[in-house]
Amino acid sequence: MTVIGVLGAGQLGRMLALAGYPLGLRFVFFDESADAPAGHLADLRSGRWDDASALQAFADEVDVVTYEFENVPVAAASRLAERVPVFPSPRALEVAQDRLKEKQLFRDLGFGTAPFAAVESQDDLDRAVASIGLPAVLKTRTQGYDGKGQRVLRRRDDVLSAFASLGGRPLILEGFVPFRREVSILAARSRTGETAFWPLVENVHRDGILRLSTAPAEGNGGALAEEASALAGRALEALDYVGVLAIELFEHDGKLLANEMAPRVHNSGHWTIEGARTSQFENHLRAVLGLPLGATQATGFAAMVNLIGETPDPAALLEIEGSHLHLYGKPARPGRKLGHVTLVEPTRALLDAALGRVASVVDEPALSR
Amino acid sequence: MTVIGVLGAGQLGRMLALAGYPLGLRFVFFDESADAPAGHLADLRSGRWDDASALQAFADEVDVVTYEFENVPVAAASRLAERVPVFPSPRALEVAQDRLKEKQLFRDLGFGTAPFAAVESQDDLDRAVASIGLPAVLKTRTQGYDGKGQRVLRRRDDVLSAFASLGGRPLILEGFVPFRREVSILAARSRTGETAFWPLVENVHRDGILRLSTAPAEGNGGALAEEASALAGRALEALDYVGVLAIELFEHDGKLLANEMAPRVHNSGHWTIEGARTSQFENHLRAVLGLPLGATQATGFAAMVNLIGETPDPAALLEIEGSHLHLYGKPARPGRKLGHVTLVEPTRALLDAALGRVASVVDEPALSR
Repeated sequence: MTVIGVLGAGQLGRMLALAGYPLGLRFVFFDESADAPAGHLADLRSGRWDDASALQAFADEVDVVTYEFENVPVAAASRLAERVPVFPSPRALEVAQDRLKEKQLFRDLGFGTAPFAAVESQDDLDRAVASIGLPAVLKTRTQGYDGKGQRVLRRRDDVLSAFASLGGRPLILEGFVPFRREVSILAARSRTGETAFWPLVENVHRDGILRLSTAPAEGNGGALAEEASALAGRALEALDYVGVLAIELFEHDGKLLANEMAPRVHNSGHWTIEGARTSQFENHLRAVLGLPLGATQATGFAAMVNLIGETPDPAALLEIEGSHLHLYGKPARPGRKLGHVTLVEPTRALLDAALGRVASVVDEPALSR
Repeated sequence: MTVIGVLGAGQLGRMLALAGYPLGLRFVFFDESADAPAGHLADLRSGRWDDASALQAFADEVDVVTYEFENVPVAAASRLAERVPVFPSPRALEVAQDRLKEKQLFRDLGFGTAPFAAVESQDDLDRAVASIGLPAVLKTRTQGYDGKGQRVLRRRDDVLSAFASLGGRPLILEGFVPFRREVSILAARSRTGETAFWPLVENVHRDGILRLSTAPAEGNGGALAEEASALAGRALEALDYVGVLAIELFEHDGKLLANEMAPRVHNSGHWTIEGARTSQFENHLRAVLGLPLGATQATGFAAMVNLIGETPDPAALLEIEGSHLHLYGKPARPGRKLGHVTLVEPTRALLDAALGRVASVVDEPALSR
């Protein structure tokens, strides 16, 4: 029986295992935390990312390694790759976890991005602000997620305080770009080179955290969605990528700007569990095993609402006809993703009506736009 | 976190756990075998059904107990029910696991069955054969499944040899009834009394083992399906039943005869994982927890093909567009259910085409009727 080793054991890992058991796979997770959510349903080895002997023991009990967490140190992934196949490759991981390298890749692939500049010092930052202008956002090049590791610069005063707060690590300054909406494209590439693309997704963030995804996004099937798929396809090839890759983009005036990518299954793809013929989780596993990829068409109109900070009464959510509840088994904490609800309806109007019912249970401003 | 205790840890238990993790549930299984399939993804306690202290320890670590295996001794279920809620109730289990009692229930509920008679002795059998005629089938009243524990009587000679082989246990003789097709109805009843019914399913058995289910069956939505739902509804009420109940029926000349029931999720409901808005596994869990039941409509035209005795190359099955593979993690053995494949298509014609592709990979005569 094939054993999948997964680096990170959060909710993404949990959903990978739930998609993989029906394929007859077994799972071993590696995480710094000994009580991570995937540990409820699979073996979990806990250790530090720099613990060579723990990583070696983990490598020896699995057939292939993948990630559910993009901030795995590249050194850990490279060390594992000496003993067992690792997908996506440590090189793809390295690019995707560095905001500067990913922006450079987007540009190399002929794709627009917000203006950006590398920042290592206060001097770099001053020059970057002079060239890009304010407002702008200063971010750590690595380790940021869900709005962490970033500071918005609105006035000259912010420039010093932001560097004081984030400096000492490699940084990137990104200009603000106006945008009409945020979208994402999810794509998979198998070890065989086969690729697959899900429909375009529209996303609403608040406080840097994804709140709502709907799919297929308006405009799916048109030029915009084709452009997003083409970008994803070029990125997959350029990185010789294996697995699911998510790219977040801004749309403005009918044009797309690439924002960032995640070298893993992604929150904006959770709707695919019920809303697409094959989920991102299943296709990620098929990809890393070199199996044929499953069909990615949407089966209706889907929406995914994150449950953040607190979990509403499950009965109230399950009362909503057609709702699918996903709880991650994590203790509640402000700002923490604790679960999500997915709706799939045959028409956009029915989806809107169902979302209205979710809005009466989940306190989420993104639902009452 | 609510902990579900499940008696039996086969593939049905495994699929219950896969449906329950997204609801934030945890699972502990109890089985005589220490390497049963559900043990790959949840805690498994192994012990004998008559081991009072093992059952007591199991009861103490769970919040509610249910079954995935109907041949759990009623005494074990009753013992557990003294310490923790058990659903369906031991009484429902007792009726459903006894072919005589279930036939009597069907008759009491006003439903047709094949002619039957209780058999305790060779004399009983002779009288029953005289009254019912041949061919007929002699079955153990309890413990039979997948064609085990039964003998077909075609000639007078068979009557002695069948009793010699099965006698000593309570038996039932059932007359053969001609039938056009076999169907099943799956229903759920929550602790709150709420009920839900899936569309009618058509089943093809070979050698006493289910091979193919399609849903919704032809005639779903009509009088026949209504009659089946009405029977299931009356059985749920009569047994004060909680959980999913499956009833298998024969159709002949537009009339239904009730054949048998299973007090658990059922092989003919596996298609509901991808083919219905809520699966039988999720609704079984919702029912035993007293949560609202999920919508049971079909999302298209579904077929489920069992993989029996050997598993074809998974890549060949996954190559079929829209196929969903479910492997149970069991070692291969002749006649053993090792997994299933589900197809869901928007039209019956597309479903037939997809089934044709499965037939080229799975050696199953039922697919080439």
